[in-house]
Amino acid sequence: MEVANKYVIIKSKVDGAPKESDFEMQTEKLVLSVKAGSKNIIVKNLYVSIDPYQLNRMKSQSSSQKTSSFAVGIKPGEAIDTYGVGRVVASENAEFEKGDLVGGLLTWGEYSIIKPGEMILRKLDPMGFPLSYHVGILAFSGLTAYGGFFEICKPKKGEKVLVSAASGSVGNLVGQYAKLHGCYVVGCAGTKQKVELLKTTLSFDDAFNYKEETDLKSTLKRVAACGVISEYTGTGKRAAPDMPDVVYKRITIRGFLAEDFMNLFGEFISSTVNYLRSGKMKIIEDISKGVETVPSAFVGLFRGDNVGKKMVRIADE
Amino acid sequence: MEVANKYVIIKSKVDGAPKESDFEMQTEKLVLSVKAGSKNIIVKNLYVSIDPYQLNRMKSQSSSQKTSSFAVGIKPGEAIDTYGVGRVVASENAEFEKGDLVGGLLTWGEYSIIKPGEMILRKLDPMGFPLSYHVGILAFSGLTAYGGFFEICKPKKGEKVLVSAASGSVGNLVGQYAKLHGCYVVGCAGTKQKVELLKTTLSFDDAFNYKEETDLKSTLKRVAACGVISEYTGTGKRAAPDMPDVVYKRITIRGFLAEDFMNLFGEFISSTVNYLRSGKMKIIEDISKGVETVPSAFVGLFRGDNVGKKMVRIADE
Repeated sequence: MEVANKYVIIKSKVDGAPKESDFEMQTEKLVLSVKAGSKNIIVKNLYVSIDPYQLNRMKSQSSSQKTSSFAVGIKPGEAIDTYGVGRVVASENAEFEKGDLVGGLLTWGEYSIIKPGEMILRKLDPMGFPLSYHVGILAFSGLTAYGGFFEICKPKKGEKVLVSAASGSVGNLVGQYAKLHGCYVVGCAGTKQKVELLKTTLSFDDAFNYKEETDLKSTLKRVAACGVISEYTGTGKRAAPDMPDVVYKRITIRGFLAEDFMNLFGEFISSTVNYLRSGKMKIIEDISKGVETVPSAFVGLFRGDNVGKKMVRIADE
Repeated sequence: MEVANKYVIIKSKVDGAPKESDFEMQTEKLVLSVKAGSKNIIVKNLYVSIDPYQLNRMKSQSSSQKTSSFAVGIKPGEAIDTYGVGRVVASENAEFEKGDLVGGLLTWGEYSIIKPGEMILRKLDPMGFPLSYHVGILAFSGLTAYGGFFEICKPKKGEKVLVSAASGSVGNLVGQYAKLHGCYVVGCAGTKQKVELLKTTLSFDDAFNYKEETDLKSTLKRVAACGVISEYTGTGKRAAPDMPDVVYKRITIRGFLAEDFMNLFGEFISSTVNYLRSGKMKIIEDISKGVETVPSAFVGLFRGDNVGKKMVRIADE
């Protein structure tokens, strides 16, 4: 069987804030079968994740970043890998069968052709949850929130926690973990609607719009930094606190990436699944439909358009 | 006996880089005796410390800083407290006698009148070392270097250590402790002469002039931040690393002040005294003479004029 596989590319390296015109849809004819003995598989993509860190991979300088698998440069004209879930439609790999649900590195496209050396994929048991949960809360967004909060911040019950970008994919989960841990949680976000969401749907103790706050001096003790979207676009905005504040207030700032917490994956999944089954965590997702919406979904991240985890539903089950 | 006591004041709050014209010398008549029962003492100042953090105390906003005793606002027209050593010339306090050598909070002046509530002073045993050592290496400069290096950085033998402002009062000591600990030490400083000093006198493994280095991207893992002189003058210069670097390179930045390490004071003094007695540490001091030189000495700190610990010798013993 032959299909037309639509996928997204960048036309050239992207510096500064991304625009939809930086992207282009490509269509290739794809035969949905793989050569015997190739060990390749073809996955029909169902949900793909839309993440700010991808912008760092699109920059002119990105290939010099060798510090993380999240930092490998994206080449103009080529399919762009991303985390997602899908269903195997053809396999010559003994580990996967046609019909298997999988989660892992797919592409911003309708189908992913995955070769053995590049395979970062596992079979997915949805455990009764919607597939989108396996792109957000039960995948890297959840692990970033869980590891960043429990491992980096090492919070005690009753402590005050400030979450920035608190309605975002990771932030809303940090706030929810913190509430469940018995902390007093304050969130900040960039619109009135997001602030309302934090206070009502997510039951944060307090929330504010950082664009309207004139005095943001706080008594921060520890900053766990998993991303700094405002610095990715190279507009000269700086997200770091003033260094004299760091000194006088004895602030600790620690950078990390989700991949640093793979050792916590089991613990993270089991406690999060328990929270979900007992209705103690809310799911905030922002899902657009169709591969054509990937560029606008991605560009919107940098304008703060998304509320909760941004992803694209590529196809219905 | 009556003397003329010359001391330094600020004329008004100081914002931005300090200028000598921000300061003024005052002279008061001072009777070298104290009222019976007052518990006051009068100290003849011998050496006073000249430190960049004082600028933060001179700013319009300084009184809102309540996070440290290093941050109490300095009032225009009043004597300015500073760390120093001196000799008691009059005392109605049972703990101190006329003739005692003391170290602690004195003033940028020829004499300090110290009242019981404000007394942060201890008797000083010079242990055979010059008095200036008790203002620098055996006082807060040393404690900052020792605590910042051993407690914050927790270095292992053989690790690489980068010291910025490496010819400064704290930096030169951090580098020397690191060499004695078996680390590979690289220092950076702002002039050719300072770089030479680091390589030759202080035996750093390597050193460079940060004003001439075009590519300062490094593989920093942990930053111990005890001060950021380039941010004190409010010129908009930022000393913090790019936050995306902090994230991708998993950098930890931790702010601290010397007072956080008072619990280490005994250990710090005994090991440093041993190093000094066995000739394993070099003393780099930059001493000007006379209370009139305090403003120029202080202003010079922000131009990088000083090499090693800056202090003023107010009077001969």
